[in-house]
Amino acid sequence: MRSGSVTRLRTSSAERTLGYSAFLARRHLYRRPAYDSAAEGKHDKKQHIMDESAPRPGRSMFAWLVGASQLLGVASVVLTGVWMGHYRGGFAWDGSGREFNVHPLCMVLGLVFLQGDAILVYRVFRNEAKRNVKVLHGIIHLLALIISIVGTVAVFDFHRASKTPDMYTLHSWCGMATLVLFSIQWVMGLLFFLFPVASSWLRASYLPIHVFSGLVLLVMAIGSSLLGITEKLLFSIMPTYSQFASEGVLANILGILLVGFGVLLGYLITKEEFRRPPNPEEEALSVHFKTLTEGGSPTSP
Amino acid sequence: MRSGSVTRLRTSSAERTLGYSAFLARRHLYRRPAYDSAAEGKHDKKQHIMDESAPRPGRSMFAWLVGASQLLGVASVVLTGVWMGHYRGGFAWDGSGREFNVHPLCMVLGLVFLQGDAILVYRVFRNEAKRNVKVLHGIIHLLALIISIVGTVAVFDFHRASKTPDMYTLHSWCGMATLVLFSIQWVMGLLFFLFPVASSWLRASYLPIHVFSGLVLLVMAIGSSLLGITEKLLFSIMPTYSQFASEGVLANILGILLVGFGVLLGYLITKEEFRRPPNPEEEALSVHFKTLTEGGSPTSP
Repeated sequence: MRSGSVTRLRTSSAERTLGYSAFLARRHLYRRPAYDSAAEGKHDKKQHIMDESAPRPGRSMFAWLVGASQLLGVASVVLTGVWMGHYRGGFAWDGSGREFNVHPLCMVLGLVFLQGDAILVYRVFRNEAKRNVKVLHGIIHLLALIISIVGTVAVFDFHRASKTPDMYTLHSWCGMATLVLFSIQWVMGLLFFLFPVASSWLRASYLPIHVFSGLVLLVMAIGSSLLGITEKLLFSIMPTYSQFASEGVLANILGILLVGFGVLLGYLITKEEFRRPPNPEEEALSVHFKTLTEGGSPTSP
Repeated sequence: MRSGSVTRLRTSSAERTLGYSAFLARRHLYRRPAYDSAAEGKHDKKQHIMDESAPRPGRSMFAWLVGASQLLGVASVVLTGVWMGHYRGGFAWDGSGREFNVHPLCMVLGLVFLQGDAILVYRVFRNEAKRNVKVLHGIIHLLALIISIVGTVAVFDFHRASKTPDMYTLHSWCGMATLVLFSIQWVMGLLFFLFPVASSWLRASYLPIHVFSGLVLLVMAIGSSLLGITEKLLFSIMPTYSQFASEGVLANILGILLVGFGVLLGYLITKEEFRRPPNPEEEALSVHFKTLTEGGSPTSP
């Protein structure tokens, strides 16, 4: 009886953390449809270990989709490099158009590819220790943030040198909003999930907002990139763009690759089947007296 | 004992339909954490009715968010009308620039606002009969499709008259991809969910793809609109755009409103709490012998 009530308290705590429905969905992924709740406390650990070793349908599809997403992501970065390197004269940090060229490369690498992959680590390393995955998620995002800031400085520096006004296009509005919100998201993630600043309740409440905002920011980054591609083409090759100049076609293909990367990432991130499985041992370890009585053991998406 | 086994069959059938995890999540939304599964069969209906009448947290937040999304959607359509009507000379069907102006208005109204609202009906009318909501979903999408086709014909007709090449910009590639995929999605939805063409198993397998594709198409429509806004501004007012001409600022604001509409729709659609509640009576009615033995009773998202 005592064992049963402890199980109930643990359940309630984890439920509040993940959001009730998401928690139940993830929890039941590892159970058979007809399930005897009376035996829950005793067999919880055993059940988890048994199902963990069973072959999972969709595991090979997951690997293929991750592979395809990485192919699209790397191809996008390479194509941006080729566009700026081959068609736009290469890279420099001298206030010239070659300094501008640093901007697209950094943004596609940092705010699209690395941001996407930082989210993906929760799916790819879903059987690793949660704490380690969290740190990796934060580090890749930090790298993404630094590279994006360098890319943003490059374009402002180029504008200053060439006396071009700042922040008047829709691309600049969307891009700046994405970068600012991304920075806030990163700092909030650090404070809420890596340092013990926020209360368990606050962390649990913020988690679904953090996850949703992450996906929105990735989509905004891709959308802003597409706006940037369009702008750059119309500023540079408007007369030949309509004659299907190779530069224009290459840049359009880059846009389509970025859309493909976003769609694949969106699918991999939102599909319930690919989510991180619940780990009773890990959850039990992170529950101490306070969370047992007040509820809310912080976890990760 | 017989009652118990029937419940298990019904559960299994509905689970395969909705996707196992999503079904469990939605099902448990209406249950208390500590739940006696032995009584499941007997109290299923009663429990559902009891909880249906209970006040739901987040219901008023849902209403506010829907209201805000509608405000953003209507404002986007109005702003597009003002931009084309006031700044770009109004509307006509004569091959002139005024015929082009039909294009942005139709696309924002059809492919963004109506497409978004067609998805939203599953959340707003979540307590209405499923069949009626499905028909409404299909009708609004049909309206969206017709208006979008008119808008697309307008721009091709304008290009023909002004001897402008077609389909060379990233906007045209993304926009055309969105329209073609949207048409396929509509036809597939009609065949799979409104007409009894596909088998129960096929319908159940297609449902999550249909739902995910719907959200992707809405995001693609919004992204394509933003690309169109950028293109139109750079083609029309490039010299004054950088001086923050009112037309440019208005069009940028339109872009931001469209992003806001997309973010709110995305939140309303994906939040588990706002999903259509499971209805045991409806599910029981749609289950016949074939689905009881083979599994898979088609339902709606």
